Amino acid sequence: MTRINENYRKLQAGYLFPEIARRVGEFSAANPDAKIIRLGIGDVTLPLAPAIVEALRSAAEEMGRETGVHGYGPESGYDFLIEAICEHDYRARGVEIATNEVFVSDGSKQDSGNIQEIFGTESRIAVTDPSYPVYVDTNVMAGRSGNARADGAYEGILYLPATEANDFAPPPPEEPVDLVYLCSPNNPTGSVASQENLTAWVRWARQNDSVLIFDAAYDAFIQDDDLPHSIYEIEGARECAIEMRSYSKRAGFTGVRCAYTVVPRQLEGTTSDGERVCLADLWSRRQATKFNSVPYPVQRAAAAVYSPEGRKQTAEQVAYYMRNAALLREGLQAAGFGVFGGEHAPYVWMKTPGGISSWDCFGELLSRAHVVGTPGSGFGACGEGYIRISAFNSRENVEEAIARIRRVFSG
Amino acid sequence: MTRINENYRKLQAGYLFPEIARRVGEFSAANPDAKIIRLGIGDVTLPLAPAIVEALRSAAEEMGRETGVHGYGPESGYDFLIEAICEHDYRARGVEIATNEVFVSDGSKQDSGNIQEIFGTESRIAVTDPSYPVYVDTNVMAGRSGNARADGAYEGILYLPATEANDFAPPPPEEPVDLVYLCSPNNPTGSVASQENLTAWVRWARQNDSVLIFDAAYDAFIQDDDLPHSIYEIEGARECAIEMRSYSKRAGFTGVRCAYTVVPRQLEGTTSDGERVCLADLWSRRQATKFNSVPYPVQRAAAAVYSPEGRKQTAEQVAYYMRNAALLREGLQAAGFGVFGGEHAPYVWMKTPGGISSWDCFGELLSRAHVVGTPGSGFGACGEGYIRISAFNSRENVEEAIARIRRVFSG
Repeated sequence: MTRINENYRKLQAGYLFPEIARRVGEFSAANPDAKIIRLGIGDVTLPLAPAIVEALRSAAEEMGRETGVHGYGPESGYDFLIEAICEHDYRARGVEIATNEVFVSDGSKQDSGNIQEIFGTESRIAVTDPSYPVYVDTNVMAGRSGNARADGAYEGILYLPATEANDFAPPPPEEPVDLVYLCSPNNPTGSVASQENLTAWVRWARQNDSVLIFDAAYDAFIQDDDLPHSIYEIEGARECAIEMRSYSKRAGFTGVRCAYTVVPRQLEGTTSDGERVCLADLWSRRQATKFNSVPYPVQRAAAAVYSPEGRKQTAEQVAYYMRNAALLREGLQAAGFGVFGGEHAPYVWMKTPGGISSWDCFGELLSRAHVVGTPGSGFGACGEGYIRISAFNSRENVEEAIARIRRVFSG
Repeated sequence: MTRINENYRKLQAGYLFPEIARRVGEFSAANPDAKIIRLGIGDVTLPLAPAIVEALRSAAEEMGRETGVHGYGPESGYDFLIEAICEHDYRARGVEIATNEVFVSDGSKQDSGNIQEIFGTESRIAVTDPSYPVYVDTNVMAGRSGNARADGAYEGILYLPATEANDFAPPPPEEPVDLVYLCSPNNPTGSVASQENLTAWVRWARQNDSVLIFDAAYDAFIQDDDLPHSIYEIEGARECAIEMRSYSKRAGFTGVRCAYTVVPRQLEGTTSDGERVCLADLWSRRQATKFNSVPYPVQRAAAAVYSPEGRKQTAEQVAYYMRNAALLREGLQAAGFGVFGGEHAPYVWMKTPGGISSWDCFGELLSRAHVVGTPGSGFGACGEGYIRISAFNSRENVEEAIARIRRVFSG
């Protein structure tokens, strides 16, 4: 009589992206001639930059030589990568992060899904709504929610509406919460948090002894140097925030897999007796027990992102996608659609035409325009009435998609 | 007041291998001239086989071409790898595993650590003692144990002594248990389970509606074709067992990272209402939510293990390590030490000379012979009085280590 984890039964349908893949697959099978343009999952489409390819190739060759054997790597990542992270992602923006505060991993999806394990099951969670489904789903699986309501929201989780009225960057709540997931530049709304918004969050978190989980997977897409790239640019954030970064979008690593999480040494949680415990130690223990570091060639490839050629080449890729985002934003706006985001993020957040539901809009886009978007409601109840359109595709496909969307929804 | 997961506080000291690394590092810093031979962690020492290097290199180059972009991969792995697994690891031994029962991952440590998540917190766990620390530690972290006793064992977990008397392959317990972790060829004892032993386990698991978690990470080291390589060679195992395999040791992937888990579609758990639930569906949901597949070049490299050259080259590496194991076994036995294992596994399980404790023996070996072993007690209370010696090193180092151990402990 082996009991299952019954929290899994509370989860709504499948995880969002496999569900989209399933529906697109069905449509495609029934309509083999349809030229489908995928602006859904947000997967990169440009080939790996030459500096990355070279790093992967040369690390593979190195591992084939007697003098180049690399077995189990250091638990939190090789120094050559961690030092590059501290230098380029932080020191270059005036932020000091120590090497023992960086934990290299195989993805921000994993990190943002696993981080909840180091906190108590009774912790109260808040997410902005809409948000990346992994934040909520992993807490539901861990038993930090009640059942789902009709709109897909779970009892016991606090949802902070991200709306047009607050520029899709909600302020801190009135009530205390233990853990808050924030994401900027935001997935899915494509918005970006201001210095003021993040300052308010850090102040609130310190007042309430709460922990912020700051997902900065899209930081490379910020176009304005004055906007915060890291939560640690906000004073006091070292005492209240964990930050996650990824190479997936900034360097085309969705099929290469590398990311990292920063847990400052000052950051603490408490036991039921009120003892303060260093969260970096807990995360280190979690990773040492359940993870085994990232492939050596992949860490070499991630380090190559920081080489002069790597920086230039990946910046060109980011610029290419951001030009797509601008075209989507302008093209759809000019056609009268309500469009947000896409200025500092590779996502455009579009109101569904005529106020139809997100999934209906997904269906219309797929069946009539052969364009795949992601239903906003898949990211939370407040995403209902929106669709996320990704800028990750070729220029040609993006232009064709804009033309098709305009044609279908004005006809 | 963000509460931590207090189950972490029950964990004993650090995770075993980082703790060994720490002690070796301290010794090494204090004795910079000591030529340390590492037979501890069990990390491979031969360079990657040419077929593997070629697969990594060509996949990297492919990803740099417009026609070779590979972003997010299929959730459970690419078909080219899964089909090779089904064909070579199973069909070749008369076992039918369907492609939707195979879940490719970045390591058996991860899989054996994560699998417990799909089961209820109230599940009762059994492990053979000694065993790979991840099985117990991850269940302690999840709250499936009480506190640790003085000998390091946790209240609430059932330990099944693996002793000389039962050939280090304990039979099923009298009492019912929900989940049992088995490992063959065994880490750390180097023993291998017989057909009869596994048949008894499968029969017991089906009678008790229990789930067996069968870790076959070392299957490639079995030297006798009549011994079971997979638990699915035992009739009825599809109804009661999950199996894990790894490329880490069989193909030198400790720094490349690839493994897989098989969850047969027939295998079920129950809800508190008695409803039967397919465990493969739960594991699929877990992986889709918290994992993002293995790097494309790594999956190509794993598939190359099954190519004619890959099979030949990796078989030669396994043979090299197994010759080391034979030398260790024979050399230490001839010198009068009590030695087990090492016939179908790359580990030799040695009684500590004079019955000293495992950690004392570790310390003696390190300080006097400059040889690193792994204290048996780090794998469980029944490992006390033993030390694990790994065959993963050069022939020269293994021979030198044997000579030093003989010298130190007879002097």
